[in-house]
Amino acid sequence: MYAFNFLTPARIREQYNTGITMMLDKGLGPRMVEDFLKIAGEHLDFVKFGWGIISLCDKDIIQEKIMIYRDHGIEAHPGGTLSEIAYIQGKFEEYLHEAEKLGFKYLEISDGSIDLTREEKTKIIENTIDHGFNVISEVGKKDPKKDKLISLEERVEFVKNDLRAGAEKVLIEAREGGQNIGVYDEKGNVKEDEVDYLIEHLPVKKLIWEAPQKNQQVYFILKIGPNANLGNIPPEDVISLESMRRGLRGDTLGKVKL
Amino acid sequence: MYAFNFLTPARIREQYNTGITMMLDKGLGPRMVEDFLKIAGEHLDFVKFGWGIISLCDKDIIQEKIMIYRDHGIEAHPGGTLSEIAYIQGKFEEYLHEAEKLGFKYLEISDGSIDLTREEKTKIIENTIDHGFNVISEVGKKDPKKDKLISLEERVEFVKNDLRAGAEKVLIEAREGGQNIGVYDEKGNVKEDEVDYLIEHLPVKKLIWEAPQKNQQVYFILKIGPNANLGNIPPEDVISLESMRRGLRGDTLGKVKL
Amino acid sequence: MYAFNFLTPARIREQYNTGITMMLDKGLGPRMVEDFLKIAGEHLDFVKFGWGIISLCDKDIIQEKIMIYRDHGIEAHPGGTLSEIAYIQGKFEEYLHEAEKLGFKYLEISDGSIDLTREEKTKIIENTIDHGFNVISEVGKKDPKKDKLISLEERVEFVKNDLRAGAEKVLIEAREGGQNIGVYDEKGNVKEDEVDYLIEHLPVKKLIWEAPQKNQQVYFILKIGPNANLGNIPPEDVISLESMRRGLRGDTLGKVKL
Repeated sequence: MYAFNFLTPARIREQYNTGITMMLDKGLGPRMVEDFLKIAGEHLDFVKFGWGIISLCDKDIIQEKIMIYRDHGIEAHPGGTLSEIAYIQGKFEEYLHEAEKLGFKYLEISDGSIDLTREEKTKIIENTIDHGFNVISEVGKKDPKKDKLISLEERVEFVKNDLRAGAEKVLIEAREGGQNIGVYDEKGNVKEDEVDYLIEHLPVKKLIWEAPQKNQQVYFILKIGPNANLGNIPPEDVISLESMRRGLRGDTLGKVKL
Repeated sequence: MYAFNFLTPARIREQYNTGITMMLDKGLGPRMVEDFLKIAGEHLDFVKFGWGIISLCDKDIIQEKIMIYRDHGIEAHPGGTLSEIAYIQGKFEEYLHEAEKLGFKYLEISDGSIDLTREEKTKIIENTIDHGFNVISEVGKKDPKKDKLISLEERVEFVKNDLRAGAEKVLIEAREGGQNIGVYDEKGNVKEDEVDYLIEHLPVKKLIWEAPQKNQQVYFILKIGPNANLGNIPPEDVISLESMRRGLRGDTLGKVKL
Repeated sequence: MYAFNFLTPARIREQYNTGITMMLDKGLGPRMVEDFLKIAGEHLDFVKFGWGIISLCDKDIIQEKIMIYRDHGIEAHPGGTLSEIAYIQGKFEEYLHEAEKLGFKYLEISDGSIDLTREEKTKIIENTIDHGFNVISEVGKKDPKKDKLISLEERVEFVKNDLRAGAEKVLIEAREGGQNIGVYDEKGNVKEDEVDYLIEHLPVKKLIWEAPQKNQQVYFILKIGPNANLGNIPPEDVISLESMRRGLRGDTLGKVKL
């Protein structure tokens, strides 16, 4: 039972579906994860092992971490970059096979660093689903210059394409930093008109907004509500985010409807 | 015994009273706290469990953490926001009761997110003291726009009011970020004339300056001395701060008088 | 064996010599270090205990941490500031003696906060080597104003001086923050012409670039190659750095030659 539970506002979310919190794990040790989840475990849905880092970690450790997270109802998955590397190297089938053996249930399919046609991305998503995985796709380019070449109309079309292909959710790219990319300007401020456009043209429940900075998290909670789907949350900010979703921090106190 | 103890300058502080270091705990796991205190335990006085986050954590974990901190001579307390929520919900008596059961000895009383008259804040502080707690109050608004409306004269008056009501110390609000709030400008630089004014008109030993950024910590150490009372220190910077207080880091080497 | 090892590019480095990663330890607890090294242990060469912080930590803990790091093939050493303090206090012999007893094999010799003539620094380096230590020296001033007074020609000469004296590697100062110091401007951007000058006039394998920020790490990897020697890496970014060295993150994917 929570401390001061008579002050704890309830937040009803459908896990893995609404009110998603996805954390970025840049290489936490297994004991630290266990310890951290005593505090934060109930407030997380997904964990992304950033980029290609798990191909630099022992299988045993990765399997152990997947299971620790799952014991708390959290699904871990490799960053999309690793799937891109596998694809361009012609090793995508091996990638799926190894992911299955390691125990992943979700995979991220992205084209942030490589170029894929819509048809190619569709095929990859479909193939991944055929192998039994749930797919979270990502839309956006890691290189700010390339990312800026994507028009809002295209961004909408890319998201729709991925959803048609069977992706459960689509991540709106903002990288680890959340600056000068996607819907954020160079200082990390939200380009509100761009968010408005995306919300108007897309099913908002299907989107996960990468929002590593606090002001971005506040923005989406106030804009979309306490059950906004948010990703790339640093571990140290997971509880802060949950407190903001529930109006337990100054930024959202009295401003959220639960 | 410290390594290289023949190089370690002594710092004489009266714990909980002068030379205070108050850390911000945003949700550390209990094993991590134990481990961290092997390094930093001797250099801390207070730990603030940020905002309303403990109402999202199991009682058992909170009680365990309070005791781990206390075993190192450190007093943990809930963030003021939780007391504000309890007050506006008419549950302040329950709040005090639960805080006592959990084992807290200090409580923070603030009005950063709600509006209180001076009389109301006085009453709350007195009531909290009557229940046997030590009170640390906070002066300042979480919303930068509202915070800017407080004149220096008012800020001084608010602090004096809380001290008259019985607060042991008064925190000068700077939030987690330390930017665009209180005595800090948008870049986190210190507004030196404002600090001068506060120091001139208030008993400096009664103040705790929230100073999350390193340049702010350096400023107050050089301004007030190695025993400046500083708050909202991130865990990873606790030892760095202690080293700066003692002239063991470039910024203050040869510049502090112990 | 690494997860997805069929996607893991090999990086051949000569430990402690090429492709160095040096991490900044600002006071990690011993259990946390053990846990962290399960993930990152293979990708590190050196750990710097920042500034004078180990003179605020128990000998037992320091010895334990040195051994935990060494068990993973990582050499820890005290920050140069402590050696400067010992020197100006006339306790340098005691410093060497204590360092030996604690188990250090490497020592850092710097003059970031004190003024030394070239002859003095040479003598200190030679003396340290005579006592059986390997020396990493540092060139640059902690105070940005003083640091800017060092011309590029002087910086080159200072590095050469330290190498002649027997330093194995020379750190190019950038502090913890990596802004407004050495080869970085106020925003942390690399002053490319200055780096070019240093590379042209110095043996690049002998340099370790302090590069706490991600954009700085990317810059040196793309400039010098995956085996650039980099220092002051925050613990949470060690694996990210290794992934960038091997082209496993968007910033360097397809751009590094291993």
